Amino acid sequence: MLKLDITSARKFLPENWLTSRLDALGTAHTMLKEGNGPGGEFTGWVHLPRDFEQEELRRIREAAGRIRANSQVLVVIGIGGSYLGARAVIELLDSADHKLASTGGPEIFFAGNGLSSDALAALLDYVADRDFSVNVISKSGTTTEPAVAFRIFRALLEKKYGKEGARTRIYATTDACRGALKGLAETKGYEAFVVPDAVGGRYSVLTAVGLLPIAVAGVDMEALLAGAAEARTALLVPGSENPAWQYAAARNALYESGKRVELLVGYEPAFRFFGEWWKQLYGESEGKQGRGLFPASVEFTADLHSMGQYIQQGERMLMETVVSFQRTHREILIPNDPDNVDGLNFLTGKSIQFVAEQAMRGTLLAHADGGVPNMVLKAQGRDPRTVGQLIYFFEYACGLSGYLLGVNPFDQPGVEAYKKNMFALLGKPGYEERREELLQRL
Amino acid sequence: MLKLDITSARKFLPENWLTSRLDALGTAHTMLKEGNGPGGEFTGWVHLPRDFEQEELRRIREAAGRIRANSQVLVVIGIGGSYLGARAVIELLDSADHKLASTGGPEIFFAGNGLSSDALAALLDYVADRDFSVNVISKSGTTTEPAVAFRIFRALLEKKYGKEGARTRIYATTDACRGALKGLAETKGYEAFVVPDAVGGRYSVLTAVGLLPIAVAGVDMEALLAGAAEARTALLVPGSENPAWQYAAARNALYESGKRVELLVGYEPAFRFFGEWWKQLYGESEGKQGRGLFPASVEFTADLHSMGQYIQQGERMLMETVVSFQRTHREILIPNDPDNVDGLNFLTGKSIQFVAEQAMRGTLLAHADGGVPNMVLKAQGRDPRTVGQLIYFFEYACGLSGYLLGVNPFDQPGVEAYKKNMFALLGKPGYEERREELLQRL
Repeated sequence: MLKLDITSARKFLPENWLTSRLDALGTAHTMLKEGNGPGGEFTGWVHLPRDFEQEELRRIREAAGRIRANSQVLVVIGIGGSYLGARAVIELLDSADHKLASTGGPEIFFAGNGLSSDALAALLDYVADRDFSVNVISKSGTTTEPAVAFRIFRALLEKKYGKEGARTRIYATTDACRGALKGLAETKGYEAFVVPDAVGGRYSVLTAVGLLPIAVAGVDMEALLAGAAEARTALLVPGSENPAWQYAAARNALYESGKRVELLVGYEPAFRFFGEWWKQLYGESEGKQGRGLFPASVEFTADLHSMGQYIQQGERMLMETVVSFQRTHREILIPNDPDNVDGLNFLTGKSIQFVAEQAMRGTLLAHADGGVPNMVLKAQGRDPRTVGQLIYFFEYACGLSGYLLGVNPFDQPGVEAYKKNMFALLGKPGYEERREELLQRL
Repeated sequence: MLKLDITSARKFLPENWLTSRLDALGTAHTMLKEGNGPGGEFTGWVHLPRDFEQEELRRIREAAGRIRANSQVLVVIGIGGSYLGARAVIELLDSADHKLASTGGPEIFFAGNGLSSDALAALLDYVADRDFSVNVISKSGTTTEPAVAFRIFRALLEKKYGKEGARTRIYATTDACRGALKGLAETKGYEAFVVPDAVGGRYSVLTAVGLLPIAVAGVDMEALLAGAAEARTALLVPGSENPAWQYAAARNALYESGKRVELLVGYEPAFRFFGEWWKQLYGESEGKQGRGLFPASVEFTADLHSMGQYIQQGERMLMETVVSFQRTHREILIPNDPDNVDGLNFLTGKSIQFVAEQAMRGTLLAHADGGVPNMVLKAQGRDPRTVGQLIYFFEYACGLSGYLLGVNPFDQPGVEAYKKNMFALLGKPGYEERREELLQRL
């Protein structure tokens, strides 16, 4: 299981950082477990790794098998929590670069998560002469970005394969009972998977939302779920030894002491989108009522040569959380150079991973010396089981953190503001009054 | 040329935000122009777009032509400013995704910017059965990450093409006269390009450091330089109408008023690494003496569904700078849906770019209403000329900003801290004392 090392944060924490929060953590824990705190109707993810419906899992596995058999590309249409989790897991377990990915299955592309017509046009070109399927993911089916993309890809599929052919290549992950996409899936006969009512978007990676694309990518989703279930068993034990309790308490104490930005640190390029997933999880859960640590992410050692200066000597409002994988898939030894022009022969025969480990240890000390507390979450390797543990760890700790902060970690009231303005400016029926007001301001 | 729109920041700025800073801006401007302020020995980039040596440019063009003719892949080995600029420009002008890129030339991969053996192994596999060349970029030639990668790729090239074949496929961008890499290039006969003494890493994209990979990618580097030269002419005119003066003054005023994080906002997935380049430029130039805005970047509208909640309602310490491209390369119109299940038929026949523009306008207002001042830098399109303008704008404004903040915008004293620890832990000769000290602490 995961281990949390807070050595390099300790001198920044008051002596009672954990003991003074045990009561509040106990309360938060119970609210998550029982689903009776603020936003408790969205805590379905807490027990899901144990309770995942076997029939849904079987259908996901079969659909993934069909897609792998008949498609070179899977286009995943979704925004926010409807794509970040799947993209995070798929890249973390393989590569952030399609060209360097080792999977033998279909390539996964994510669409409908923005409004770039150039990016969409490039993907339309790419799939034009390839066999592809679409997984459209939307609770309601009316969110602008994925809905627009789905109109376009659906039209392309129908043109390419006919209505019946398209029907068998569209997979809808949506509400179990209601909503535009659910209705469409029923009318048209698309295979549908469920976005559970009790799981909000940013906590949904271990539902069909994340699992179908993940399975299509060839990831062992049963191992992913097993890892999450292991973490659930280990972490739902209250007490000061619980690493999720320690993480939630430490970041809360650091926030109370004036830290304002939390950097999630990875040492693998493949970790980049896990950072994006984490940023949504924590930023959207805690960033409300004028509160919360601002979540950012960096890739070391690369960013030690870009963001490193700021981290070492800029505004002293930062804290770091490092996710460290103890095992690498492939070892590379540093070759000898008889000329030793770079002066690195003292590293001859050492593995790059060994160098990376010393870079990490050296950085932890340097940043702590510079006034940046940091913690290390130690994970085994980049395998599905460990990634399942990481996901559950961060989700559970996020629920605890939000409750410690005194916010509802399961709502996102601020996300509507830009949408309302956008609808008004686009001339959507029903937004006439706001439209007048905005046009006067512009 | 570029235009800066500060409408949505104005209510957050004191009336004299610009007038009170004109004197300081004038002084900063002169220091940049004359190179006689703190760090003045590193202001070579100020006049470089005008003074670029034609002979160096010709050699870059010819080398790029050779690489394009004989290589399927160019591996660019460099870290920090030695890769971010090239990666930013190449992706911004095409696509962040290799598979979706439209270039007919060699694929560009960046290596030696980290210590992931898995990422390196995947790239080694990829080039194994392809023709490739290497551009190694390092002022000294002794920075650990690129030096390790270069040992490995050099050995692979020599194995694959023989010593003489490898010699013609290695291009060294390094110091003009001294250093390990310069020496090696001379001994081995590699073609060498210059990292000018007067240009620091983060300001080096428009030197051979950035230009060789950029030219290999098929980008019109003359147009890029021409755009930068245009911006130079336009921006080196002192006065309150100067958009770079306005940008520097506004972000300084917002920092003084308590803002702590600046978000660079793009609306194109291809913009992601331009954000990374910008983060190094501003973070490394300003993040010292316990000061400076923390630089972060977001991709809208995608991240409105992940970071949007925090931006709208989290800690009120944020400001935003949006880079908006007025033209898109390809237009896509939203098709009609007779069933209108998603309720979006009011958008039928509208272009996606139109929707994106309304999303941006709506977001500017929503964020300003939520307490986040924002500015918009309006650029023409994603073409080399405009990108050259953007680069120069941000570089010049960064110099001004650093001087306004009262720091030396051209040093990076904090970057050594982790390196010293890493060397000590790796057992590098000369670091024995620090090693003892660190091992005791660990």
